[in-house]
Amino acid sequence: MAQLNSNYLKLKAGYLFPEINRRVKAFTDANPEAAKQLIRCGIGDVTEPLPEAVRAALHRAVDEYATREGFHGYGPEQGYEFLRKAIAENDYRARGLGIADDEIFVSDGSKCDCGNILDIFGHDNRIAVMDPVYPVYVDTNVMAGHTGPADESGVYGGLVYLPCTAENGFVPAVPDEKVDLIYLCYPNNPTGATATREQLAGWVDYALKNGAVILYDAAYEAYIQDASIPRSIYEIPGAEKCAIEFRSFSKNGGFTGVRCAFTVVPRALECATDTGEKRPLHPLWNRRFSTKFNGVSYLTQRGAEALYTPEGKAQVAALIAHYMGNARILSDAARAAGLTVYGGRNAPYIWVKGPEGQTSWQLFDRILNEANIVVTPGSGFGGAGEGYFRISAFNSRANAEEAARRIRSLPW
Amino acid sequence: MAQLNSNYLKLKAGYLFPEINRRVKAFTDANPEAAKQLIRCGIGDVTEPLPEAVRAALHRAVDEYATREGFHGYGPEQGYEFLRKAIAENDYRARGLGIADDEIFVSDGSKCDCGNILDIFGHDNRIAVMDPVYPVYVDTNVMAGHTGPADESGVYGGLVYLPCTAENGFVPAVPDEKVDLIYLCYPNNPTGATATREQLAGWVDYALKNGAVILYDAAYEAYIQDASIPRSIYEIPGAEKCAIEFRSFSKNGGFTGVRCAFTVVPRALECATDTGEKRPLHPLWNRRFSTKFNGVSYLTQRGAEALYTPEGKAQVAALIAHYMGNARILSDAARAAGLTVYGGRNAPYIWVKGPEGQTSWQLFDRILNEANIVVTPGSGFGGAGEGYFRISAFNSRANAEEAARRIRSLPW
Repeated sequence: MAQLNSNYLKLKAGYLFPEINRRVKAFTDANPEAAKQLIRCGIGDVTEPLPEAVRAALHRAVDEYATREGFHGYGPEQGYEFLRKAIAENDYRARGLGIADDEIFVSDGSKCDCGNILDIFGHDNRIAVMDPVYPVYVDTNVMAGHTGPADESGVYGGLVYLPCTAENGFVPAVPDEKVDLIYLCYPNNPTGATATREQLAGWVDYALKNGAVILYDAAYEAYIQDASIPRSIYEIPGAEKCAIEFRSFSKNGGFTGVRCAFTVVPRALECATDTGEKRPLHPLWNRRFSTKFNGVSYLTQRGAEALYTPEGKAQVAALIAHYMGNARILSDAARAAGLTVYGGRNAPYIWVKGPEGQTSWQLFDRILNEANIVVTPGSGFGGAGEGYFRISAFNSRANAEEAARRIRSLPW
Repeated sequence: MAQLNSNYLKLKAGYLFPEINRRVKAFTDANPEAAKQLIRCGIGDVTEPLPEAVRAALHRAVDEYATREGFHGYGPEQGYEFLRKAIAENDYRARGLGIADDEIFVSDGSKCDCGNILDIFGHDNRIAVMDPVYPVYVDTNVMAGHTGPADESGVYGGLVYLPCTAENGFVPAVPDEKVDLIYLCYPNNPTGATATREQLAGWVDYALKNGAVILYDAAYEAYIQDASIPRSIYEIPGAEKCAIEFRSFSKNGGFTGVRCAFTVVPRALECATDTGEKRPLHPLWNRRFSTKFNGVSYLTQRGAEALYTPEGKAQVAALIAHYMGNARILSDAARAAGLTVYGGRNAPYIWVKGPEGQTSWQLFDRILNEANIVVTPGSGFGGAGEGYFRISAFNSRANAEEAARRIRSLPW
């Protein structure tokens, strides 16, 4: 009989957000009145209208499909040159980083890219993830057979977990042992922490010495306010030889429902074949794109391109200012309530330590029942998140202000 | 040092179409005048404008993103209910096939789905592919490590090739040996052949007896003119227990540049775990979608939904009639030139046997140089395609008529 991939059976019952949805549904079913004033600060989904520059570009592109001359069918799987160039030029070369157009791969989402990237690696790499962590990094490795089963607390055998704690500022030290693939995410989801140039340089140095590859998720780089914080791993010399960077238009351009992102795979990045030769990864990722993907739609790429126009940049800046305004309001409220607050300064996530002795899910339930706010329990991101919860700043200003008021008045 | 996936190094130099592009470029560089009248009948990409109903729906959806109330962020990874329902209702239940909405998974392309589906299967399945074959089925199995290296002729060790020849009407008989995963594609790319109800029933019977899974690619079902030919594998009783079906809006709605497709994974379909238990595949595919994909954009799904409105259906019918008109013109021309012609009656592809003693690439080069037409060499799809070439009917009427004229006048 045909065999299924039994690694899937190791996965814990639910991705975090389905469990949150289940509890929210139980609450709203039991409390229909209170449910009317529910404020969702859980999932990191943008709420504000799509920038006008993007909508105008989308309309124009739709009209182009109306004639045989303007019609666009299959495009280059890796992305149209106009978008690859706009990205490389604006996000990298304008900042002095030597990324070429053809090192940019345009995709339909960073979540897809973070998962799909494993296709081009062998199965014998030792994998390091941060704890707490965006669950996709872990789950895709479980699905690919790179782990043992999970224990009671959800820790998978075979993975190297790098604890991110208040003590280390949520930036882990390089491990004593040798690892081959390292997932780093800054500005961090869920902790909202950022890594300094020195900290990232430490990781690049480790990777170069150990022949490791850093999978650097910079989906939230647009939220960095402090000019001294690196926006790209390629700001660290040598990173082009050891790092892949994931970026997205979801959180800067409001593209969570439009779907466009990109991955940078430098040509200088090499790994070992199973006979020990060094070979570049770029042709493998290129081949994966050609064979298992048909590119992002022309109209979506025209929409993304519009984010790099002067109007688009101004509209993105306004969106970031809006969400960061929310982050300040929510952080101030949690601080005023006597809680210890992290993140929220260079990231749209606020990472809050609850009162001693309460678990993340206890905090989640209390905040849901007493303040009618949905947050995300920190332990859902890993054991080191226990006792924390995450507040997302993605909301309307009115909701952020009301949520802040309730957070302040809750008897913590 | 981190290891790359060495299976990629087994892949033959190019996916077929890059090699075609290379030869076309060499021709146009050398013959700039002749290049001006080049007609492309190679890649199966649609050419006609996107249906008006789709463009109107896209415009409406873009406008919805303009307000906080109308904005759509992350949607359900598996597709919005409105589209899953429209698909299940129109493509299946209206034809008496009991497919539920939640057995439909909306994606950004059949190429992606055909590749990604391997994620949910184990690595020890015996894989059967047709020959000639859409290269994606083979290459994705090579990349996943399911084959040995290729020999000189491009045949990979470990795969079971099912020859599709003029003798068997390009529908292979079930194999004597036991296989676990079987790729079937009807109407067929590249041969344009269709399978009868009896032939498909033979395959379903084989799959049920052997516990095999049929991966049924029905991307071209809209081109079926003969009412007796099955449009879906689920027209065969029992197929819901042994088949996954891939469908696309690329070739009916002209979505090659808009990107929307779907896969049907019936809840009744079960495979074996590595301890031999039977488990349904549906939760695994669902989990893959949740973890490695973020859904197709809201606007694209609204565009796809419009294909199921009365206007959309009429516009799709007009597109199909247009391309099938081209297929008739091109088939007639090749027949008038004395060539043996297959396909083109229920499919947009015409599969032509060249004169005895000429290889597919020789035919390709002659047709390029002497008629200034780009076709696809049959051997590019596998050894059994040697001596054939494929003409795609995706073109303007004017181009199809001019190509027909040249085909007729070529001294074959």
